[in-house]
Amino acid sequence: MDVYEKSLKLHEEWAGKISTEPKCQVKTREDLSLAYTPGVAEPCRRIAENPEAAYQYTQKGNTIAVISDGSAVLGLGNIGAAAAMPVMEGKAVLFKAFGDVNAVPICLDTQDTDEIVDTVIRIAPAFGGINLEDISAPRCFEIERRLNEALDIPVFHDDQHGTAIVVLSGIINGLRITGKKKENCKVVVNGAGSAGIAITRLLLTYGFSHITMCDRNGILHKDYEGLNWMQQEMVKITNLDGQTGTLADALVGADIFVGVSAPGIVSADMVRSMNQDAILFAMANPTPEIMPDIAKAAGARIVGTGRSDFPNQVNNVVAFPGIFKGALEGRASIITEEMKLAAANAIANLVSDEELNEDFIMPEAFDPRVAEAVSNAVKAHIRH
Amino acid sequence: MDVYEKSLKLHEEWAGKISTEPKCQVKTREDLSLAYTPGVAEPCRRIAENPEAAYQYTQKGNTIAVISDGSAVLGLGNIGAAAAMPVMEGKAVLFKAFGDVNAVPICLDTQDTDEIVDTVIRIAPAFGGINLEDISAPRCFEIERRLNEALDIPVFHDDQHGTAIVVLSGIINGLRITGKKKENCKVVVNGAGSAGIAITRLLLTYGFSHITMCDRNGILHKDYEGLNWMQQEMVKITNLDGQTGTLADALVGADIFVGVSAPGIVSADMVRSMNQDAILFAMANPTPEIMPDIAKAAGARIVGTGRSDFPNQVNNVVAFPGIFKGALEGRASIITEEMKLAAANAIANLVSDEELNEDFIMPEAFDPRVAEAVSNAVKAHIRH
Repeated sequence: MDVYEKSLKLHEEWAGKISTEPKCQVKTREDLSLAYTPGVAEPCRRIAENPEAAYQYTQKGNTIAVISDGSAVLGLGNIGAAAAMPVMEGKAVLFKAFGDVNAVPICLDTQDTDEIVDTVIRIAPAFGGINLEDISAPRCFEIERRLNEALDIPVFHDDQHGTAIVVLSGIINGLRITGKKKENCKVVVNGAGSAGIAITRLLLTYGFSHITMCDRNGILHKDYEGLNWMQQEMVKITNLDGQTGTLADALVGADIFVGVSAPGIVSADMVRSMNQDAILFAMANPTPEIMPDIAKAAGARIVGTGRSDFPNQVNNVVAFPGIFKGALEGRASIITEEMKLAAANAIANLVSDEELNEDFIMPEAFDPRVAEAVSNAVKAHIRH
Repeated sequence: MDVYEKSLKLHEEWAGKISTEPKCQVKTREDLSLAYTPGVAEPCRRIAENPEAAYQYTQKGNTIAVISDGSAVLGLGNIGAAAAMPVMEGKAVLFKAFGDVNAVPICLDTQDTDEIVDTVIRIAPAFGGINLEDISAPRCFEIERRLNEALDIPVFHDDQHGTAIVVLSGIINGLRITGKKKENCKVVVNGAGSAGIAITRLLLTYGFSHITMCDRNGILHKDYEGLNWMQQEMVKITNLDGQTGTLADALVGADIFVGVSAPGIVSADMVRSMNQDAILFAMANPTPEIMPDIAKAAGARIVGTGRSDFPNQVNNVVAFPGIFKGALEGRASIITEEMKLAAANAIANLVSDEELNEDFIMPEAFDPRVAEAVSNAVKAHIRH
């Protein structure tokens, strides 16, 4: 049985990967009178008087919703709400297992931006945070922005920012190894969807200034036709030299390649055209933009992928559980750029100078220190 | 410490009465590849091909949403979404403890009928059923009807039907004790909100034909001013003699009184005016319409209340967990009148002839047979 058949069989056994478990007993009349009526009226009254008391007396302080419209699920594309549930349940499992955060999967039977925004606002009272998941670009940018404006709880689109944080942490450690300086690095990001754009934005915030974005038709520039509104924003702040051409053109002399695109589109020759000590994150799943052994043979110094069977796996699970753990514990109302940078630094710093090498730039996904370190970094940057 | 202070303190300790617990481990890379990517893609693909597979591979088959808009919470009234959460969490605890059904509390930040309907439809894909809770009348009738029409999963407003089922089960056993025949009984229902109307409708379905509804201004009749649209429906099918007057007038010669109204509004004299072997359900909380000892002294044979410290507690918890347990296990798409009648009979039948007496007409809320019996009754009446 391969991983897919095995997973299918297990999903049938699980029949739902999460369950809702009581934290209190209801075995006697007294239990019932305290967990439910009449006693429960008292916390209700307190919250009616002061909405902030919801954090004290309900699940709100440690529960988020994991929300998708099923429009961009894994590599499967637009498979809809019902079919997205196994992923959202899996995410809920990871939030609990790694961050001790309760997460409720919600799949929305609409892909209309206004309807999604309205719906999430209306169901928000039960939750202390909203993790958006697998919503296609460019709608995801508007949805996240409008929700962050409307709600006083943090809203975080993991496909964007979780990915960006983990990639940045890998790049930070790549710079530690190679001695490259961010100010001088030329970065190429291939893929101009939600992840590629969020990575580019976070790298700019971190201090990289020479970034070129590409998509399947080549280098994005101001006169490129068919850009969506967010890509149009991006060409104002990237590729400041106005370069045109192909991905191969972009990679000539580049120091860092970040791929969130398609299998095998980077050739050995392209890697050879990059600067010395090139750093590549080839994260197309399941087949990377270039296989690590080919990239290394062509001169790359560090190669990361999305796969757990190669070194340097770029895995969002090192970021999102700790992000929300910290945001909830510190009662953040928004996840700021500062928090994301702090999280990336915290992840990078978990790899000691002794451990750090070309094949170990990321802490393991199962390292129990990760969520705690990310959470503390996030909490330290909350402004009230 | 009274029950309110004690409950408040416990709610602070619990900080949420439910948690979301993984049913699968994620301790190794292999675990992760099966519960999450890449393996999870397979159940996603299956559901995308066949939406029914959601019942096989996700939580849908054993998970419902408990949804309120906070407009009619306990006796507290319209306290809003956030303040309703302790009740909805409590309900989720009861669903799990008594029916082994996972329940997710959702409180809606809107009290607009259209918005509630739209929102519930949009979040429905994750759930196998919808339990509506503490939504004020008459909006609750329209919301429930429209959701049942729009969704292929059962939608059940517990304040209406749970209460009606349990009251009917008590009345069935009251008839067993007193030997009264439903065809001949005169019934008075005091309170014309969601519970009173649902009780009346279920009693009519069961075969009672002489029912009079009252509210705070007296007997409801065709020329009564200020009735809402649902009450206007009710006066077409109740009080067929067109009686007018007060609650006291209605009770003269009545066999059964059902109160879902206000403390102390039934006097001893009113009970004396009722037929022999009168049956009273005085369910105002926490103080009944008449105290049981006073009613008994005035000639009542059977008295039930909403309180656990008197005999014959009318407690929805004997109904709702089993209702959804049966509906989910049998994959019902709606909760029909037949299922409600079957549930009421099943609850009544759990009290054996030997056990049955004036002070024991209901099984205990903690009787472990109850949810199973109700579930089986519901399942036996599912039509596919």
